[in-house]
Amino acid sequence: MKKYIYELKLKVRDYECDLQGIVNNSVYQNYLEHTRHEFMLANNVSFADLHNRGIDAVVARVNIEYKNSLRPGDEFLSCLYVRKEGIKYTFYQDIYRLPDEKICIKAKIDSVAVVNGKLGHCLELDEFAAESEDMLNNQN
Amino acid sequence: MKKYIYELKLKVRDYECDLQGIVNNSVYQNYLEHTRHEFMLANNVSFADLHNRGIDAVVARVNIEYKNSLRPGDEFLSCLYVRKEGIKYTFYQDIYRLPDEKICIKAKIDSVAVVNGKLGHCLELDEFAAESEDMLNNQN
Amino acid sequence: MKKYIYELKLKVRDYECDLQGIVNNSVYQNYLEHTRHEFMLANNVSFADLHNRGIDAVVARVNIEYKNSLRPGDEFLSCLYVRKEGIKYTFYQDIYRLPDEKICIKAKIDSVAVVNGKLGHCLELDEFAAESEDMLNNQN
Amino acid sequence: MKKYIYELKLKVRDYECDLQGIVNNSVYQNYLEHTRHEFMLANNVSFADLHNRGIDAVVARVNIEYKNSLRPGDEFLSCLYVRKEGIKYTFYQDIYRLPDEKICIKAKIDSVAVVNGKLGHCLELDEFAAESEDMLNNQN
Repeated sequence: MKKYIYELKLKVRDYECDLQGIVNNSVYQNYLEHTRHEFMLANNVSFADLHNRGIDAVVARVNIEYKNSLRPGDEFLSCLYVRKEGIKYTFYQDIYRLPDEKICIKAKIDSVAVVNGKLGHCLELDEFAAESEDMLNNQN
Repeated sequence: MKKYIYELKLKVRDYECDLQGIVNNSVYQNYLEHTRHEFMLANNVSFADLHNRGIDAVVARVNIEYKNSLRPGDEFLSCLYVRKEGIKYTFYQDIYRLPDEKICIKAKIDSVAVVNGKLGHCLELDEFAAESEDMLNNQN
Repeated sequence: MKKYIYELKLKVRDYECDLQGIVNNSVYQNYLEHTRHEFMLANNVSFADLHNRGIDAVVARVNIEYKNSLRPGDEFLSCLYVRKEGIKYTFYQDIYRLPDEKICIKAKIDSVAVVNGKLGHCLELDEFAAESEDMLNNQN
Repeated sequence: MKKYIYELKLKVRDYECDLQGIVNNSVYQNYLEHTRHEFMLANNVSFADLHNRGIDAVVARVNIEYKNSLRPGDEFLSCLYVRKEGIKYTFYQDIYRLPDEKICIKAKIDSVAVVNGKLGHCLELDEFAAESEDMLNNQN
């Protein structure tokens, strides 16, 4: 899909569903975190490596809109792009059910880089944000 | 604590913590959901009963600020009050570490009542919202 | 790999790891359950369908040997074969780390078919057990 | 109850239940782990402290019998005693539904002490095993 710089295809696992027969609200945060980590890895950046260099990407706030529920057996696309807003790195993450691409989740995850214990900047995240910016500009 | 109409004391379980040695971000949604359900039960309302009467309380949006992390062995107080804003029932839920009452989580959970498949009102939730309103007014 | 009738390739997700930096012991049961359900689906049998026909496959006992730990980023192969032993359907499930195929988990999951509330037989599971039997015999 | 050296009262949380409306099989391992850790803490031994002294209690095998299911709202008693069998520390852990004390889970968890990277003995676990032994002998 346009505007995203990373997409991960996943499938609902039955144990992720609750009493109501749908994926439990908290599980989407697992999907979103896993997508961010896989995105970083796909760009040769691991949270462990960053951590060893004294840089921690810390979630400060999540804002998740629940649009439609995923159900047992559903496949879905977990997509993201990143923007730098002041000191924050904001991940825009959306989840679409497959194959109909119905929107399920619209999320905005604010994170900050903690460098050696203080708020700071992370070169790798800066690059991802710049790449997202370019992609959005080219589409307009 | 003032302003809340329900408080639940809980304790971190080691398996809820991740690689970083702190409670994983998604687990707080488990805590928040469990607190809402226990609050309802303490008022003799169960999600199962509501469901059987054709009423479902559905989460439409969550907004969670991560202020401080909980760690293995930490005890904490999970507090809430409710407000009705138009068709939405908004749960204001805060988590404080014990014994120092340091704020860990500030959350705002928007839910709606789906009655027989349509957006509607839920008498029980209306009462909780009115009770919260009274409590806040009496404090001013 | 020989002897197995089904293999599923999966990857560790960071949130599945605990304080010790390895996959938490309980998570392997999630992997094993998901593998059984995907195996059934690959053979056009879903737990939901069975349930709607009054047949429930119920886990009666699990025996899991923890041989080696999986870590963040590890990929692994989750393999199984089935045997019928009296009234029990026993799933033999092993997990191997990739790419070195080091054994991580050796599990034996005893399940029974509950048909309309009573212990019974499930034609589909009978077929899978017969298929496994054939495969093992052909290898000897 | 007799024979146990530790009991922990817990309550099912709705998010621990799956599609079938009962506690998911894997969640009992969470309960069992949490019970062992709380038991240790109640005796002033923490896994973190042991770890810092170079001692890790590692689960080598679990054997869990699923006797009856726990459901939303159920309270239960999670009980244990310990036995030393050669180099193994075996935790016998049973879960009873309250208030009727119906048995739900019978588990046997084999663990070993890894001391500075080698199989070894752990004085604290030795004491717990001796205490269990005494209690059992006194009852006969």
